[in-house]
Amino acid sequence: MFGAIEAGGTKFICAVGTGPEDLETVEIPTTTPSATLDAAIAFFQPRRAELTAIGIASFGPVDLNPESWTYGYITSTPKAGWRNCDIAGVVRKSLDVPVGFDTDVNGAALGEARWGAAQGLSDFLYLTVGTGIGGGAIVNGRVLHGLVHPEMGHIRVPHDRQRDPFDGVCPFHGDCLEGLACGPAIEARWGLAPRDLPSSHPGIALEAEYLAYGLAAWVCTLSPQRIVLGGGVMKQAELFPLLRERLIGLLNNYVQAREITDCIDRYVVPALLGGRAGVLGGLALAEEAAGVSV
Amino acid sequence: MFGAIEAGGTKFICAVGTGPEDLETVEIPTTTPSATLDAAIAFFQPRRAELTAIGIASFGPVDLNPESWTYGYITSTPKAGWRNCDIAGVVRKSLDVPVGFDTDVNGAALGEARWGAAQGLSDFLYLTVGTGIGGGAIVNGRVLHGLVHPEMGHIRVPHDRQRDPFDGVCPFHGDCLEGLACGPAIEARWGLAPRDLPSSHPGIALEAEYLAYGLAAWVCTLSPQRIVLGGGVMKQAELFPLLRERLIGLLNNYVQAREITDCIDRYVVPALLGGRAGVLGGLALAEEAAGVSV
Repeated sequence: MFGAIEAGGTKFICAVGTGPEDLETVEIPTTTPSATLDAAIAFFQPRRAELTAIGIASFGPVDLNPESWTYGYITSTPKAGWRNCDIAGVVRKSLDVPVGFDTDVNGAALGEARWGAAQGLSDFLYLTVGTGIGGGAIVNGRVLHGLVHPEMGHIRVPHDRQRDPFDGVCPFHGDCLEGLACGPAIEARWGLAPRDLPSSHPGIALEAEYLAYGLAAWVCTLSPQRIVLGGGVMKQAELFPLLRERLIGLLNNYVQAREITDCIDRYVVPALLGGRAGVLGGLALAEEAAGVSV
Repeated sequence: MFGAIEAGGTKFICAVGTGPEDLETVEIPTTTPSATLDAAIAFFQPRRAELTAIGIASFGPVDLNPESWTYGYITSTPKAGWRNCDIAGVVRKSLDVPVGFDTDVNGAALGEARWGAAQGLSDFLYLTVGTGIGGGAIVNGRVLHGLVHPEMGHIRVPHDRQRDPFDGVCPFHGDCLEGLACGPAIEARWGLAPRDLPSSHPGIALEAEYLAYGLAAWVCTLSPQRIVLGGGVMKQAELFPLLRERLIGLLNNYVQAREITDCIDRYVVPALLGGRAGVLGGLALAEEAAGVSV
């Protein structure tokens, strides 16, 4: 039995179980670090003896460098009270179990690899398009961390201001991909939530265009075996065919792989775990921390 | 003692040795596959007994999937005669040694890791800017291959046609990064070779701008511990300070890492192996093939 925490900015989802079939879950509102972590620990405490490890998939930015003295911390977040919060350390010390720790999006990528749309793949990209845009990459079977961790949503993409004069909503970069294509950008540009855009609304093709620029950049950089797309914006199912078509157009047969040129419907796919990607990601991180090979 | 082949479109460089200090080298013009490979094999044959392995860093595209029946082939190249050429297989069978095989740019990345500007790093990006633009990424200490291999030069970047009405030279994508910023693009736009652009020529700042878009995208995607830049265009030394400044500007303190915010001069650095990167990359691939851990 493993424990999992999806540490989000508005709620913590805590769970125990072994997979999607037997997950027992509780939701805790995110208030102060001490109140929130106390409630999470109180959930696990009675089950402590059964738990081999706990995995935490956390909002960020976080410190993922095991050599660093702030490993397992949430670091420079603007979220009140949570800056420099030792989330992994508190859980480990309070419950005395091995703790796996990663970003929410890397956790979700691992969850999709373990139980979802990326099973059996050594190299893939998981992208979430919602309040923000974030990517988790698995390379040679392992999560890509690098110096810090990716911040994929913030790449710059072509922005034709005649077609789309919108300035973008990213407070750091204005019209980076996230600034142009995250959920709040769609709402600010059109006055409609992504899911309320009617069929044939020009906002759908524009969103597909921006996301296709990102996916093309990641195909050229990461050479993924598959791209798995989750997050609230991707619930607009009309996006998928448009996005695939634009991606094929942008790549223009340069990357010679039948998986892309002949099977794009199986190359760019929806995430399978939906709202449970984060907590199942935590469970996958717990398995890793316990040294379970899957 | 190891053997190395840098398989290029105009010449093959073959070498034997153990590193930069004792490399014995020969150049063979690239003609037909059989004549070129025969000459390469004839170079190694008298030294066969001393060779533990041979590494090949090859022009591409190549098949790097060990499960594939065309593993070790140059595949869909437009270069006459070389399409579907089993380069690694011919060398292995003719000389009966273990053969390491990768792209020229991945080989150069490994060479920089072993003897050059990326020693001791587990995660970095090597980028060459010359006739084309190509990137090799090391992630968690291993070369990133993925589905095929990266084609980093072909990402799309913002292109302000009022500032730069040039259409780009990429036959597949027009104004992708390579199309706008490779050596031939500079020559076509300004009528001058990159190294002949005088100080303060606007082409230098424009080149830095485009490359900075690429580097920012790769910082956000790969989170490298360092970026190593080689290739003919980067011999224009004035590019480095401009490129670093634009990269810092584009990232705008979003990625919180002192290595970037405080030490950009050590984060974006010139390659150290110069014209020998490819052949030393071949040597590093030979070491890998022999199972030498370095």
